[in-house]
Amino acid sequence: MGRGRKPIFAIILAGGSGERFWPLSSPKRPKQFLKIFGGKSLIRQAMERVLPVVPVANIIVITAKTLAAATRAELPELPRENVILEPCRKNTASAIATALGEVLRRGGEDALAITLTADQLMKKPGVFRSLLVKSLGVAARKDVIVTLGVKPTYPATGFGYIDRERKIFVEKPDATTAARYLKSGKYLWNAGMFIFRAGALAAILEELSPELYNLSLAVSKAPSASRVLRRLYPTLTSVSFDYAVMERTRAIEVVSGDFGWDDVGGYAALAAHLPADAQGNIRLGKTRLLECTGCTLLGDGVRVSAFGLENIVIASCGDEVLVMPKSRSTELKRLFEVLPAGLAKIISK
Amino acid sequence: MGRGRKPIFAIILAGGSGERFWPLSSPKRPKQFLKIFGGKSLIRQAMERVLPVVPVANIIVITAKTLAAATRAELPELPRENVILEPCRKNTASAIATALGEVLRRGGEDALAITLTADQLMKKPGVFRSLLVKSLGVAARKDVIVTLGVKPTYPATGFGYIDRERKIFVEKPDATTAARYLKSGKYLWNAGMFIFRAGALAAILEELSPELYNLSLAVSKAPSASRVLRRLYPTLTSVSFDYAVMERTRAIEVVSGDFGWDDVGGYAALAAHLPADAQGNIRLGKTRLLECTGCTLLGDGVRVSAFGLENIVIASCGDEVLVMPKSRSTELKRLFEVLPAGLAKIISK
Repeated sequence: MGRGRKPIFAIILAGGSGERFWPLSSPKRPKQFLKIFGGKSLIRQAMERVLPVVPVANIIVITAKTLAAATRAELPELPRENVILEPCRKNTASAIATALGEVLRRGGEDALAITLTADQLMKKPGVFRSLLVKSLGVAARKDVIVTLGVKPTYPATGFGYIDRERKIFVEKPDATTAARYLKSGKYLWNAGMFIFRAGALAAILEELSPELYNLSLAVSKAPSASRVLRRLYPTLTSVSFDYAVMERTRAIEVVSGDFGWDDVGGYAALAAHLPADAQGNIRLGKTRLLECTGCTLLGDGVRVSAFGLENIVIASCGDEVLVMPKSRSTELKRLFEVLPAGLAKIISK
Repeated sequence: MGRGRKPIFAIILAGGSGERFWPLSSPKRPKQFLKIFGGKSLIRQAMERVLPVVPVANIIVITAKTLAAATRAELPELPRENVILEPCRKNTASAIATALGEVLRRGGEDALAITLTADQLMKKPGVFRSLLVKSLGVAARKDVIVTLGVKPTYPATGFGYIDRERKIFVEKPDATTAARYLKSGKYLWNAGMFIFRAGALAAILEELSPELYNLSLAVSKAPSASRVLRRLYPTLTSVSFDYAVMERTRAIEVVSGDFGWDDVGGYAALAAHLPADAQGNIRLGKTRLLECTGCTLLGDGVRVSAFGLENIVIASCGDEVLVMPKSRSTELKRLFEVLPAGLAKIISK
């Protein structure tokens, strides 16, 4: 396989708008900084998860300029130059192309790289790492993008899917399509993690997107990414890596397995990860409750008292408190859409 | 009637445990200090309501020692000696007997007095004052306690009732009895306001309760109430004026009318007094909401955001926030009963 000779890099994509767990999360402290899962932030968990496979010097975090201090504080062992700051928000295609340029400069075309999200949970890190090793093996042998697929457990409409037989990516489906995907057994969730040889992805970008290829090339040839990004980022199209690359290439291999993956897409998803009382209530922080069932109380700010409620989420943080039915927690973004300047406006103090 | 010759006093009973509107109210700031009704506290409204009938020098407030500063700050025009402080909580019988002693000392047996609650709303103050004048006339002529009755509008179980024909007080009924009372048309709500000649009430107390009579007498003979209260209050039985006096005497006259009375017994009762949006939501203070109906949002502390809720009360104040269904707002006290030291414990910081 030649793995021994090729350096391995991990690229942690750590953007995030902070909407899904507002007010616990916010644009200034998006989901990856939440410490409600075992007291350790999700971004720290993401880093520690790959440490047995990738040396810390090769772990690169791509994040927003505004999150620089918070990210460095959370991952103090990371070399300063390994936190690459995007001057503006340009979605995942630009972030991965930037990281590719960094990997090319540091490790050359034969370097292997793993792109990871910063804000997901994996309950089976051992299984995850063995899948990574398997994926790296495939990426070392073949000029493909290896993607990690997760077997669907419910008809999710919030994820993209992978057609495992045809090896193609498909967009987020509507509810009917998602149900069909689930029933067929032929589809996997796209967990947003990609493994590739640097030279292989560079060739794919060259074919599909001059813009992204030029970005990678420019970063790889510059002494550091920052000046290149300041110049190029404002001109880039904002597009996801799935849309710009994965849905357009046939050079895909899928590695799948059950590594306890959870996107933790909103407050309702917490139930699987936090202990509940006999009435199904989840409580964290300063809370008290009487005669409630199925509620989620997160008192990170003021104390939350709940009486006689069913399936309600209450989250307090700083000088904000949010109350909504658990069933609507995936729609939370709409609260910001109807407001003049969205969440950024909301959280300005 | 001789009203011109007899001094008139108003006695405002301003105790309160602060439970019904917690966390907006609390033992340190009970309901009478709420300013959500037109921006003026309920105790201030109570005082201003009787000012056309009673000179400010004759308005006496009986309150807890712990509420002295808040009460004086709220009613700065009241002479300092007109705020009488109870050293401990002993219910309304002791408070009225104390006030009676004060009236006897200042105005003698022929003085007329009105006892009022500090934490109720009256939407028709003009009607109220005309009923007061009528009641004072009755009290000047007859040795009775005149009580103000309110025609029931729903089968309330939270109030005592007055049998208007038999002129007797009856206890808070259960739901079935309350429905019968409402249907019969023979019962009035006891609004807790009494009008009497000082000498007449003294004679009634002498007959019914040596303890209360002695308290009145001691206060009437002392230079000021405070030393007497410090000595006697700890020894007193804690009992309501309704139970100790009104349910045991036949010397009762009832004056009734519609003066827009509302006890405002809890969050659900706010709907009648505060403006609502097209979806029936009431909002005060720092709140935002999306797709809610029939909710009550009071953001006196942190900002409250509500999304997709129906008939929920959310009240924030200081570092506390309460969430409950509107339908259970009269049960709020139970939240404190189940906690080790009740509300006092809850609000200690």
